Amino acid sequence: MRLFPCRHTPFALIPPSDGKHDPTRPYGCDLASCTISDTENERSFSFGVVIVVIEAGVAPPLPAVAKGIDARRTHILDAFEVCIQRTGFHRTTMQDVAREAGMSAGNLYRYFPSKEALVSGLIERDRERFSADFMNVARSSDVMGSFVALGRKHFLETPRERCVQFMEIWAEASRNPQVAEMCAAVDKEVNDFMVAILEAAKVSGQIPASVDSAAVITVLSAMGDGMFTRRALEPDFDVEDGFRLLVNVMDALMSGKIPLDRPLPVIPDSPGSPPVSEEKPYVRG
Amino acid sequence: MRLFPCRHTPFALIPPSDGKHDPTRPYGCDLASCTISDTENERSFSFGVVIVVIEAGVAPPLPAVAKGIDARRTHILDAFEVCIQRTGFHRTTMQDVAREAGMSAGNLYRYFPSKEALVSGLIERDRERFSADFMNVARSSDVMGSFVALGRKHFLETPRERCVQFMEIWAEASRNPQVAEMCAAVDKEVNDFMVAILEAAKVSGQIPASVDSAAVITVLSAMGDGMFTRRALEPDFDVEDGFRLLVNVMDALMSGKIPLDRPLPVIPDSPGSPPVSEEKPYVRG
Repeated sequence: MRLFPCRHTPFALIPPSDGKHDPTRPYGCDLASCTISDTENERSFSFGVVIVVIEAGVAPPLPAVAKGIDARRTHILDAFEVCIQRTGFHRTTMQDVAREAGMSAGNLYRYFPSKEALVSGLIERDRERFSADFMNVARSSDVMGSFVALGRKHFLETPRERCVQFMEIWAEASRNPQVAEMCAAVDKEVNDFMVAILEAAKVSGQIPASVDSAAVITVLSAMGDGMFTRRALEPDFDVEDGFRLLVNVMDALMSGKIPLDRPLPVIPDSPGSPPVSEEKPYVRG
Repeated sequence: MRLFPCRHTPFALIPPSDGKHDPTRPYGCDLASCTISDTENERSFSFGVVIVVIEAGVAPPLPAVAKGIDARRTHILDAFEVCIQRTGFHRTTMQDVAREAGMSAGNLYRYFPSKEALVSGLIERDRERFSADFMNVARSSDVMGSFVALGRKHFLETPRERCVQFMEIWAEASRNPQVAEMCAAVDKEVNDFMVAILEAAKVSGQIPASVDSAAVITVLSAMGDGMFTRRALEPDFDVEDGFRLLVNVMDALMSGKIPLDRPLPVIPDSPGSPPVSEEKPYVRG
């Protein structure tokens, strides 16, 4: 029995000990796929696996003092979230956060010297939660089932207030390049991880090789963002039904029923299909 | 030849003269579908049509003074949009809007007595633009082509600044019930109109009768919102490619290739698909 690198391998395997992995990152993920040839019985098997690099042994366990700091930071970030959801990102001051956290402003500044540091802490915490969730998906032998379970947590079990918070952070990110950069980094990490999981599922035969993983994840991400938006804007939004539709679309995408590779059609400018109304552009400048 | 109401008719036909239509609304839309039986030749034809009620003759043409007011209101709303996009909804004051519009605050208050009135004006203007666009789609014999043309305008030709503005309005709507109500009314009107157009396209045979119009529009709306979000947050987002994916999904949905009626699968809690990580909820309270 021999092990061959598989022709489907789109990523290089980066083992945790080769020095290339950034030890400041909470995890690394990559895809490896192999073909096992059983020459005696003239059979071969292809399989894919998402390599999750856990920094076991690299960082020593946190000492008791650091754990205390960590708990205090978590407490402050929780208070910051409550403030954002209640009064909005812009109207939240450092004093508001200190009051909500039940501490002096001076003490708060020891942990987070600015509002930007608070946002950064919030986004970093999300990243850690996402990575824990995705590691569970990566370990699963049922990619579709794991995605549904993950979606159930993020769409159905997350309270609406958190969607309101997303709107605030998105509004800030759309005008503040520093916040935009932090959001984009997490989004890219999450999307890359999801693409790697789909690529592995292809090799292990769970989804057809013809599926365009990156395109599928782009569609699902957009729909997911839209679900959060609907929920934030419409308190009566039927999130269970919205999620059901998302899962149906995901299932069709992953089984290759939706061709995503077609170019945009050319719209004929005929009397039968009149052009949309000609107005001045929505926005000046 | 006789005219029968068709069994596919899910909406009642409301003619503009029956007194039920609200004359304060810029338009009304409804679906009528009929069967024409050609008894002599033993044939019958079903067709659907979106009835667009235009208030011709109800409102007299605007006098010159009103036109002047209208132009002034448009100018102020343009200025308000510029302010929102530049500094955000909350940080924009009535003074900022007056300065951007090149008028005194006192004069501004004559047209818009509050920031809420400005938001209301902005949303009402959007509604008028949408209704003009949708009337073009409703008049078209090529529903898919018209939807693509409409999408091209709203996704590709709309400047990114407008997406930033959406994030600001959405953030406000998610915490301000008054703004939420205005947004929800326009969303409902747009969605109802799109559903009516799909129902008409079904009857005229452009899309299969098995397509769940409301579900399709829910999916497309969520994806559309997600596209605006991506564009606002990522200045480098490839909007042309995102729109191409949206059109591919729309095409699959409208041709009935994606079953949207399936219930959520039950996720087995087996070792093969581990549950997602158990953490405290994201948000307190």
